Amino acid sequence: MREGEFDIIQRYFTASKRAPRKDVLLSVGDDCAVTELNRNQHLAITTDTMVEGVHFLPSIRPADLAYKAVASNLSDLAAMGAEPAWMSLALTIPNIDHAWLTEFSESFFSILDHYNVDLIGGDTTRGPLSITITAQGIIAKDKALCRHNANVGDWIYVSGTLGDSAGGLSYLLQGKSAVNSAQEFLIHRHLRPTPRVLLGMALSLTRLASSAIDISDGCVADLTHILERSQCGAVIELDKLPLSAELVSEFGLAQAEQYALSGGEDYELCFTVPDSNKAKLAKALAHIGVNYTCIGQIRAIHPKNKNRIQFQRHGQRVEVEFAGGFDHFK
Amino acid sequence: MREGEFDIIQRYFTASKRAPRKDVLLSVGDDCAVTELNRNQHLAITTDTMVEGVHFLPSIRPADLAYKAVASNLSDLAAMGAEPAWMSLALTIPNIDHAWLTEFSESFFSILDHYNVDLIGGDTTRGPLSITITAQGIIAKDKALCRHNANVGDWIYVSGTLGDSAGGLSYLLQGKSAVNSAQEFLIHRHLRPTPRVLLGMALSLTRLASSAIDISDGCVADLTHILERSQCGAVIELDKLPLSAELVSEFGLAQAEQYALSGGEDYELCFTVPDSNKAKLAKALAHIGVNYTCIGQIRAIHPKNKNRIQFQRHGQRVEVEFAGGFDHFK
Repeated sequence: MREGEFDIIQRYFTASKRAPRKDVLLSVGDDCAVTELNRNQHLAITTDTMVEGVHFLPSIRPADLAYKAVASNLSDLAAMGAEPAWMSLALTIPNIDHAWLTEFSESFFSILDHYNVDLIGGDTTRGPLSITITAQGIIAKDKALCRHNANVGDWIYVSGTLGDSAGGLSYLLQGKSAVNSAQEFLIHRHLRPTPRVLLGMALSLTRLASSAIDISDGCVADLTHILERSQCGAVIELDKLPLSAELVSEFGLAQAEQYALSGGEDYELCFTVPDSNKAKLAKALAHIGVNYTCIGQIRAIHPKNKNRIQFQRHGQRVEVEFAGGFDHFK
Repeated sequence: MREGEFDIIQRYFTASKRAPRKDVLLSVGDDCAVTELNRNQHLAITTDTMVEGVHFLPSIRPADLAYKAVASNLSDLAAMGAEPAWMSLALTIPNIDHAWLTEFSESFFSILDHYNVDLIGGDTTRGPLSITITAQGIIAKDKALCRHNANVGDWIYVSGTLGDSAGGLSYLLQGKSAVNSAQEFLIHRHLRPTPRVLLGMALSLTRLASSAIDISDGCVADLTHILERSQCGAVIELDKLPLSAELVSEFGLAQAEQYALSGGEDYELCFTVPDSNKAKLAKALAHIGVNYTCIGQIRAIHPKNKNRIQFQRHGQRVEVEFAGGFDHFK
């Protein structure tokens, strides 16, 4: 198969033939849809499916599965700057396993409670194991962090460290357990990613960011979504990529960099900040409890280069070979 | 397996340990959740999953599948009295089949356009064929049709005719095609049920109904949900059940009655109306374009009878043997 998920959505599910409803402010194609809610607020809505064998290994513990299914949806809300509110759970299970359901539901409500989210409904059906969550959050009116507003000259930031999840996954794919604390850390980063909810809300409320996306398919792939929507290019400074000491110590710098650029499921935020707002970031984000790093800058699309992203190392242009973003149809 | 879907939801997914959010007005356990929207309106939210081999036959045409997945969600909105607004589609497909996707998406947008609903987002993933739709609709504040407000003495109504879908399904399960127009009608009623959107909205806006549910699991099973939530019983007059001439001619009266009581997926509405409102129904529903029939009355729970529903034929009490409602875990 050559086509990927984005081709299918673009070709078949982008729009009906009639005009969109006036209460739909942002539709298919961003981290969330945005609809009207009331005079002061908008509603952000996102849906994510996880299928056994495609999005998670059959060996995953139900507590980790529940956590990650919720976290990935919260991450989409975070990327819009929304405060999480309500969640619907569509759970398809092959049979009724009480131990499994107990562990799954306890973990599920544990993370919901932590983020003050209510489970408001859903559906429980028999079939091959999969989980679809629809999450809804509330945004101050006209403050959604969209993908299409990045501008030439804006600085590109990412939160946390990149590539840890891909490093952790590589152990799980080999059926290996952690043999040291660095490997434990990386596996934990894969199984229990932290959705950057407070960071997203802070960026939305302060209006400091011009665009944002969560890194679920890999930093390069997700930044490319911003660039395509904003019709611009970017330069990434490879030596600025935030890499954890654990990832570098276990995999070496070259592999760590690969994971940081193209590994999926980091669930960090990538966001752009106009130069005029750069100095205000430190104060606005001081109490959020997450690091953030400037890794590059938005540029005009280079006329001679069909790639939207150029890479530099210590200020010198370099070519980077790397795998594309995660796409389960490819 | 002894437990069914409702046991799982009750046992594992009914509530977290903390107090619910104040903006959640109705949570797990009705046709939709209801949340605050703005000063004059509430939001109804419902999620339904359809899995191949469980909820639909592998032989189903993609156009019929898309229609039914949307219709079953619109039916849940109708049962709350909501006006449909937004929909998210989580589509899991085993591979990319352009003919299939073309037919599916055209049918999908056709029914969405008919009901003025926008597709606002979703997820496309690889895996065993299944569809999860989250639908959202708008209700006038405090006018949601809930399950828990039926009262002793209220009259029980159903829309349309009952059992047609089960009759149509019986042909499909045998791999048979329709050999006459009656069978065509029944198969069409199974594949293309009409969500009773206008009826639900009319019942909500006029406040004539005290409760409502859509008939997806069978008339008796779904009425029982109202009775359990409203803590009452009911009598059903078997000779009042609305049966189509097609169903009776093809299956005989006894089997038609069985299908009407316990066959699933009619997607008609069952609703209760206080005696004082009974006379106003005709005027309020005159222009909705759907028939409705009084099939019984809400009663106190009979102290000597553990069954919530008693059956009568021509005013005489009768015992009815019938299969329970559809539950894919049983």
